[in-house]
Amino acid sequence: MKQKQILSQLTAYQQGKQTHEIKEEYGLEKIVKLASNENVYGYSSKVKADLSEHLPELNIYPDGHTAELRTALSKRLAVEEDQLIFGSGSEELIQIICRAFVQEGSNTVMAANSFPQYKHNTFIEGGTVKEVSIASDGKHDLEAILEAIDEDTVVVWICAPDNPTGTMNTEDQFLQFMKKCPEDVLVVLDEAYREFVEDEYLLDSTTYTKSFPNLISLRTFSKAYGLAGLRIGYGIGNPELIHNLNVVRGPFNTTSVAQRAATVALEDQAFINETTAKNLEVKEEFYQFLDELNWDYYRSHTNFILVSTPASGLDVFQYLIENGFIIRPGELLGYPNSIRITIGTKEDMQELQHLLQKFDEQIR
Amino acid sequence: MKQKQILSQLTAYQQGKQTHEIKEEYGLEKIVKLASNENVYGYSSKVKADLSEHLPELNIYPDGHTAELRTALSKRLAVEEDQLIFGSGSEELIQIICRAFVQEGSNTVMAANSFPQYKHNTFIEGGTVKEVSIASDGKHDLEAILEAIDEDTVVVWICAPDNPTGTMNTEDQFLQFMKKCPEDVLVVLDEAYREFVEDEYLLDSTTYTKSFPNLISLRTFSKAYGLAGLRIGYGIGNPELIHNLNVVRGPFNTTSVAQRAATVALEDQAFINETTAKNLEVKEEFYQFLDELNWDYYRSHTNFILVSTPASGLDVFQYLIENGFIIRPGELLGYPNSIRITIGTKEDMQELQHLLQKFDEQIR
Repeated sequence: MKQKQILSQLTAYQQGKQTHEIKEEYGLEKIVKLASNENVYGYSSKVKADLSEHLPELNIYPDGHTAELRTALSKRLAVEEDQLIFGSGSEELIQIICRAFVQEGSNTVMAANSFPQYKHNTFIEGGTVKEVSIASDGKHDLEAILEAIDEDTVVVWICAPDNPTGTMNTEDQFLQFMKKCPEDVLVVLDEAYREFVEDEYLLDSTTYTKSFPNLISLRTFSKAYGLAGLRIGYGIGNPELIHNLNVVRGPFNTTSVAQRAATVALEDQAFINETTAKNLEVKEEFYQFLDELNWDYYRSHTNFILVSTPASGLDVFQYLIENGFIIRPGELLGYPNSIRITIGTKEDMQELQHLLQKFDEQIR
Repeated sequence: MKQKQILSQLTAYQQGKQTHEIKEEYGLEKIVKLASNENVYGYSSKVKADLSEHLPELNIYPDGHTAELRTALSKRLAVEEDQLIFGSGSEELIQIICRAFVQEGSNTVMAANSFPQYKHNTFIEGGTVKEVSIASDGKHDLEAILEAIDEDTVVVWICAPDNPTGTMNTEDQFLQFMKKCPEDVLVVLDEAYREFVEDEYLLDSTTYTKSFPNLISLRTFSKAYGLAGLRIGYGIGNPELIHNLNVVRGPFNTTSVAQRAATVALEDQAFINETTAKNLEVKEEFYQFLDELNWDYYRSHTNFILVSTPASGLDVFQYLIENGFIIRPGELLGYPNSIRITIGTKEDMQELQHLLQKFDEQIR
């Protein structure tokens, strides 16, 4: 058959094993999953209460306009309703952007080893990718990214905070970048972990989407809001850009349950504050532990940390999984000899630290 | 910016108004929605009971492999697990197929005015579409479709039963078509309404996917299963084809709630039998009514009917909406002077018939 040739060079996403599979394989009673940067504190209890009482009419198609959530979000963000687009996770919005902008002959520019779906979707649409090495502090090298842009560049991906490094550029760096970036190149600012960023580092991206028509900010309910299982995210951009992306968007691309849950979750900012405060506290403790252990890491603006390991990340992964913890080996993320760990609860992290300490002793 | 030029020639999906909006606009207490071919009998009560007791862990990503539903479905259909792919409705699978097969220079072939997403997604991926007029009996003209296939054809869309005519080709016609169709052209058999088809008309498509590696059957939980709000559908095809489509599929494209609900719904075949039996009974009564009224229609293998009207379908639409019924004017579907009506409950259809009778009297 005549499928695109590029497909033979790409692989389908290989997800980690499900926790129940690992329990069986290793004979474990308990598994702590710190691999996918999910919210380890769950999700708003108000969402749970609401869904158990008001399950939407499942036989009816979802509202393709996402009206209720759209209104709530536009008020909260102080943007116009036509500045918003919704997707099945912000991930689907990456897909939609590629379908709208990328064709044979075009390229997109990204930081090397940043979120792999940028590359994957660019390739599927027939484009090429220019990967720009990160700076020595782990941040996107925005000057080098500017230099990489050429006349065929249609999209630049800025992941802030970055996955998997957890680093992010300063507001000034980003603003200078936007001023120098050609106006006909779409800048996608992926802010999936935005809610975890400390106030003093937050980019004022909502405002910037008004001054820069070539900027879209992507956000999600999958991380801090704890609704990964429901698949809902959104983009904020110029109305004309949003209009074009909506042409590509499937008519009913988010479920009625997700729309409802996100609307309720949005109102419960106390849950978000609680999540991020706990995350920050446990993260600081983990930094201290790593400092004492003398393992290097990037300071992170998210709920995960990329840690250098004194052995292959695959070995650390194997050791931890046998002891009931799932993390991500850096080898799969373009960072050999490192691991990416979601910051767990205080209790789980103490147990993890104990294990890492033991690992360190064993290999010395 | 450098979005694809084709986007300026396409429009985003314009959904009908939400029922609550229409109620307000026309001061109505009750609205009967017979516009989107949803299941008017709801969905399995077992799904409702299950979801209210066992809401999945929403903070955890869905199983991207859809393992539980996959196993249940492969047993039920007697196919291998690697013959199945899942999508956010079968609609997303149409998108995935276009992303995998269509590029500039390629074309896809479809029956004129069949499901519009075939055309929309082909255009987005840079391809062109050859539309083949339907036969006088409303069915796909499979001989003419074969003739339309050329060396640039990558996909042929066969909608069986067709939306919006409700007609379908015989098993013999389809089998002859498959035998003559070039082996390197993917045939997409869209069976969204399959569950409504009377046994003697059913295509043995599951078996055919084994003998024809270039055939994929698309099915959905949105129609007879009544889970439109949850967005989940699936495709059955050759493992190699499915592998290629999985490269394009987003890693977490269906929600954990949808996967769970579909698995439970699949077990409750009594609900499907009840739905289709009621649908058939009410449809027969509606045929009789239309015969007496002398309005023409296509006999339908689905839960909707395309009816010729003695006035513009838009006028009938307006008249009905003011009286509390939403249907689809044929003008929006490529069939002027007609309306597409979802077969409602016995009670609602009697009320609708009363209204249509009055309309007919007024314009004579």
